[in-house]
Amino acid sequence: MRPNIISLLTDFSYKDQYVGLMKAAILKINPEAKIVDLCHKIPPQDVRRAAYMLNASYRYFPKGTIHVAVVDPGVGSKRKIICLKASGQYFIAPDNGLLSLIVEENRPDTIVDITNKRCFLKDISHTFHGRDIFAPVAAHLSKGLNPAILGKKITSIKKIDFPKPVIKDKTIIGEIIYIDEFGNLVTNIDEKTLSRLSKDPKKRIIKVKSKSISGIKESYAQVGKGKLLAIIGSIGNLEISANKKSAQKILEAKIKDKVILT
Amino acid sequence: MRPNIISLLTDFSYKDQYVGLMKAAILKINPEAKIVDLCHKIPPQDVRRAAYMLNASYRYFPKGTIHVAVVDPGVGSKRKIICLKASGQYFIAPDNGLLSLIVEENRPDTIVDITNKRCFLKDISHTFHGRDIFAPVAAHLSKGLNPAILGKKITSIKKIDFPKPVIKDKTIIGEIIYIDEFGNLVTNIDEKTLSRLSKDPKKRIIKVKSKSISGIKESYAQVGKGKLLAIIGSIGNLEISANKKSAQKILEAKIKDKVILT
Amino acid sequence: MRPNIISLLTDFSYKDQYVGLMKAAILKINPEAKIVDLCHKIPPQDVRRAAYMLNASYRYFPKGTIHVAVVDPGVGSKRKIICLKASGQYFIAPDNGLLSLIVEENRPDTIVDITNKRCFLKDISHTFHGRDIFAPVAAHLSKGLNPAILGKKITSIKKIDFPKPVIKDKTIIGEIIYIDEFGNLVTNIDEKTLSRLSKDPKKRIIKVKSKSISGIKESYAQVGKGKLLAIIGSIGNLEISANKKSAQKILEAKIKDKVILT
Repeated sequence: MRPNIISLLTDFSYKDQYVGLMKAAILKINPEAKIVDLCHKIPPQDVRRAAYMLNASYRYFPKGTIHVAVVDPGVGSKRKIICLKASGQYFIAPDNGLLSLIVEENRPDTIVDITNKRCFLKDISHTFHGRDIFAPVAAHLSKGLNPAILGKKITSIKKIDFPKPVIKDKTIIGEIIYIDEFGNLVTNIDEKTLSRLSKDPKKRIIKVKSKSISGIKESYAQVGKGKLLAIIGSIGNLEISANKKSAQKILEAKIKDKVILT
Repeated sequence: MRPNIISLLTDFSYKDQYVGLMKAAILKINPEAKIVDLCHKIPPQDVRRAAYMLNASYRYFPKGTIHVAVVDPGVGSKRKIICLKASGQYFIAPDNGLLSLIVEENRPDTIVDITNKRCFLKDISHTFHGRDIFAPVAAHLSKGLNPAILGKKITSIKKIDFPKPVIKDKTIIGEIIYIDEFGNLVTNIDEKTLSRLSKDPKKRIIKVKSKSISGIKESYAQVGKGKLLAIIGSIGNLEISANKKSAQKILEAKIKDKVILT
Repeated sequence: MRPNIISLLTDFSYKDQYVGLMKAAILKINPEAKIVDLCHKIPPQDVRRAAYMLNASYRYFPKGTIHVAVVDPGVGSKRKIICLKASGQYFIAPDNGLLSLIVEENRPDTIVDITNKRCFLKDISHTFHGRDIFAPVAAHLSKGLNPAILGKKITSIKKIDFPKPVIKDKTIIGEIIYIDEFGNLVTNIDEKTLSRLSKDPKKRIIKVKSKSISGIKESYAQVGKGKLLAIIGSIGNLEISANKKSAQKILEAKIKDKVILT
């Protein structure tokens, strides 16, 4: 069966025509494709954020889904565009580190440097490869094209670093890696790291921006309205939140702020 | 024929991955589902607003549509998640009052307390039941699952109050119940209530925020650019608008401000 | 084969229920329709912006696509709603100039004044013809309805003017026609106009807001981070951009600002 689902992750706004045109270009080649907006308006050129979003998401899609990620400050330059298959799914992205986490967590079956112009639109603009290259390539893949047709195999991709939590004595030092639209502060402290401290989760103290938060809760409603709490969020990492409020606003927190857990 | 259409109403932003993941979880179970974004980014935790939006909308969908509404400040707590069938359509929501208006205006055929974990994702997070429970349940229903499989029947749901207009002498006292993105001020004064004043609609005076507006118009263009007007809006209620401007900005109006009609 | 793809361009926000209700109204009539969001939240009532967006986009859609454009400050007044076929595609819009550019660049096969109420919803609101007229008409067309059924043929539509670049001596005087969400300043200077100056593109000087920019680049990365550049954008027109920054913010530029090229 053909992998007919194509997910889109971009830094485009729904107020511009860019996402709509990617969908048009896909449907012109494969009218049967089912396109899912994974997320858009990633902060412009924020490759790291895009990498986190994609890595938090792909496993929830059906096998054979084609994920197209266009956060591409190098558009028009000589950066590669790559396609890889990992964990039964396809990923198409600029070779700028966006797929670092996917490759770190999976052994990709194949990585291809996409160069075959017969799979692109006829005219390629300088500024919008989402429409002219990424979308048509995804559409061809969704019709069953063998990725080997797209270009030469390569063995490595550009990687960027992601901050890892550090364990020192009986303390975990992590940081905020992104902040969602509710103002939840997502940290890089995952459950595996947490399990390395033997202490009962309810007795832990979490320090962030000079505030101390007691324990790890199991629902927002366990604290009063507007109060801060720590909770394991939907990607399995520690998050700092507030019941019915934005933790980001309360703490004036930003990405890279330290979160320390004892 | 299977009810294949699933509508989504949430307080998630399209900048986060949450809506995309609900769609992924649905398509993993039913790749034939047709998913419609009803509206998103409801003000966080604003259950009342969600209830208005859903009630203003459901009747325009085909019979058998499954409406999934996730405005869920109690996620992870012991609040129920319910499914009900009313007016030939299905509704899935937290039991927090979101479905009050649907139940008030229709006699639901059945109400179910959703507890059957075989219809959920295997791992349930503390913070994102949209992906882990609501979406998979909707997907199973869209494949024809009998709602009785989801859990036990219940006979009542949590209700919240919605302000009703008051008629005193020859005056209707209503209020602003929500404000749309154009700045139109939607009131709780519906046509049925209006019809109880015998006076010609064109001769009525509408008072809001110390301004007086004459008559009820039939198009924005009946007043000059930037001028305020009253009109029956698309949900059949009185709205205060401005021709090519935001009435909200002109009046600095907010929800619960009184609108008085004589 | 039926033209099953319907594109939507509106000034509605995804925070309101309006786009969702247009989709509901379409699917109620044609559950097989494939709906593509082209773009939304066009600045309210900005017919000119809508015309640019649609004209920049339609050619990327499959033949037979039905484009529905709802930027409609005259809703409820006596303005016409029109349907025309041009370049193998259908366009439905208020007759307020929104289709001026489509008609200027193509010879429409037929233009119809849409009046046949049997193709509308039963109850027509004063303020939301998107749901009550545009969506159902598009749905009927997507099922193969002959446009002649919609109303009488007409021979001309309302047109609005779009600023054209002027060539004086060896100088092109153009202007900013819209600004995208990245802050790219899109001008009305197209490649055809540029080709009329014989000078090498790399040696041109572009003046905007008292700044001078040297040459026309082929990728954002050809200048340093935060630096301004000129580039041919995705619609084939000259754009003023900044590498990884917003040119709009750097220049405090706005629509109609002059862009002069020597």
